[in-house]
Amino acid sequence: MRIITDIAKLRKALTAARRKGKRIGFVPTMGCLHEGHLSLMDACRRENGLTVVSIFVNPAQFSPTEDFAAYPRQKKRDVLLAKKRNVDIIFYPSIKTIYPKRYLTYIDVKKITQTLCGHSRPKHFRGVTTVVAKLLNIVLPDVLYLGQKDAQQCVVIRQMTTDLNFPVQVKVLPTVREKDGLAMSSRNAYLTPKQRREATVLYRSLRQARQQVARGERRAATVTKNIRRLIRQDSKGRIEYVACVAADTLEPVKTLKGHILIALAVRFGKARLIDNIFLHV
Amino acid sequence: MRIITDIAKLRKALTAARRKGKRIGFVPTMGCLHEGHLSLMDACRRENGLTVVSIFVNPAQFSPTEDFAAYPRQKKRDVLLAKKRNVDIIFYPSIKTIYPKRYLTYIDVKKITQTLCGHSRPKHFRGVTTVVAKLLNIVLPDVLYLGQKDAQQCVVIRQMTTDLNFPVQVKVLPTVREKDGLAMSSRNAYLTPKQRREATVLYRSLRQARQQVARGERRAATVTKNIRRLIRQDSKGRIEYVACVAADTLEPVKTLKGHILIALAVRFGKARLIDNIFLHV
Repeated sequence: MRIITDIAKLRKALTAARRKGKRIGFVPTMGCLHEGHLSLMDACRRENGLTVVSIFVNPAQFSPTEDFAAYPRQKKRDVLLAKKRNVDIIFYPSIKTIYPKRYLTYIDVKKITQTLCGHSRPKHFRGVTTVVAKLLNIVLPDVLYLGQKDAQQCVVIRQMTTDLNFPVQVKVLPTVREKDGLAMSSRNAYLTPKQRREATVLYRSLRQARQQVARGERRAATVTKNIRRLIRQDSKGRIEYVACVAADTLEPVKTLKGHILIALAVRFGKARLIDNIFLHV
Repeated sequence: MRIITDIAKLRKALTAARRKGKRIGFVPTMGCLHEGHLSLMDACRRENGLTVVSIFVNPAQFSPTEDFAAYPRQKKRDVLLAKKRNVDIIFYPSIKTIYPKRYLTYIDVKKITQTLCGHSRPKHFRGVTTVVAKLLNIVLPDVLYLGQKDAQQCVVIRQMTTDLNFPVQVKVLPTVREKDGLAMSSRNAYLTPKQRREATVLYRSLRQARQQVARGERRAATVTKNIRRLIRQDSKGRIEYVACVAADTLEPVKTLKGHILIALAVRFGKARLIDNIFLHV
């Protein structure tokens, strides 16, 4: 496994692989790797001749009041984990490499970045799409791997790659969960033991919603009300949103029909956790 | 020469050329081709194995009050001209091909899009960078050819391709002029015979500025004042701006030093004309 920090060196390595006819798969991450990331790397390995993983805590997707400085960084551990999963190249750029002096360009996806997490994180997705576009232009992968835990991010990136005609296939893989159901996230590290126990209510509330829909419930308002009630009952988490939206447009629905995303964001102390499920109704 | 309207077909043709090791050069245009465009095609032919020219009047770069509907379109003539210059592929997409239903993504370059033409055309460059990014992702050229007449556009596109790491080289070729000095532009067709005669003052005023700088003038205010005076004296054109700016940052300068752009925009009836010169002081 090679660790490359320089764009020109990375391009050289990738051009050589491409010339040999290797299909290139790409997993962008902010490091602090967990089984969610590793499952993307495994799929990438299986489906491509060369697997590139980027590790870059992207300042552009954090607001000044958010946890950019506190975000966990553990390079040594990440490198070991990626090596074990037979990743070919880790791209580990500096902030100056990605945002040099006089950097001025940002990508905005309208509408679908303003809802759900966009309400409390107004410039977050602009930072995400900008860095992903840059990474796509640097790596030029055939396939991009994303995790469903960041459901809105997946929808936004897919919209961006489609709209801007990036020649890449976007694959979204299922959320990987702890044994008790909590979605894996680098931010789980912020939880106190008590918060960690309480946070299991998030997925429990989504599973309950799935059951209620399976039993015939079609009113979005009732489903979200029941999710909110369970979260309040079983935890001290501060609910930011609970929403039933169309899975492609992220527009709110009143009646559950078709391809639906039920998504939520809840704060437990310093940790802002998100989770979601997709339903075909 | 092939005329291709479909993105998938274009990609197929380009992938085949790329496999044969052909270097791909790209000239984006809005059609109504003149010698300025044709000089870009000639350079592209000389320097690449395959020359792609796009013809697309991009609605995203016109404001509702501008001349999108009136902008001259002459497909047959354009095709003949491109064929004569041995262009390999004309990409002639429909508006729906470039901006399908539910299109949501735009690229913003900050600062340098707000000055000069950006004052009177606030969303213009957003439309330009967005369509150019799309075309770059569709064509994946090795070299992109632009004309210096649109000096700010060249600076903005270069900033965008650098910032977003597009793997393309940007080449800017000199403005091609009519015998009497008027910069070639598709919008010259809007001029009445009288306006056409008067419009020669634009380049005359820039040449005068160059001479004054050669003779030692270094005060930007004096240079722009003299340009304005000559334009007012010799024409009925309504001056939108005359500015001396740093060639890379487009920031106004008080003293002419280093790499300087002197740029102007003047309205003659329906036609908004621009012109510029670069100086090394």
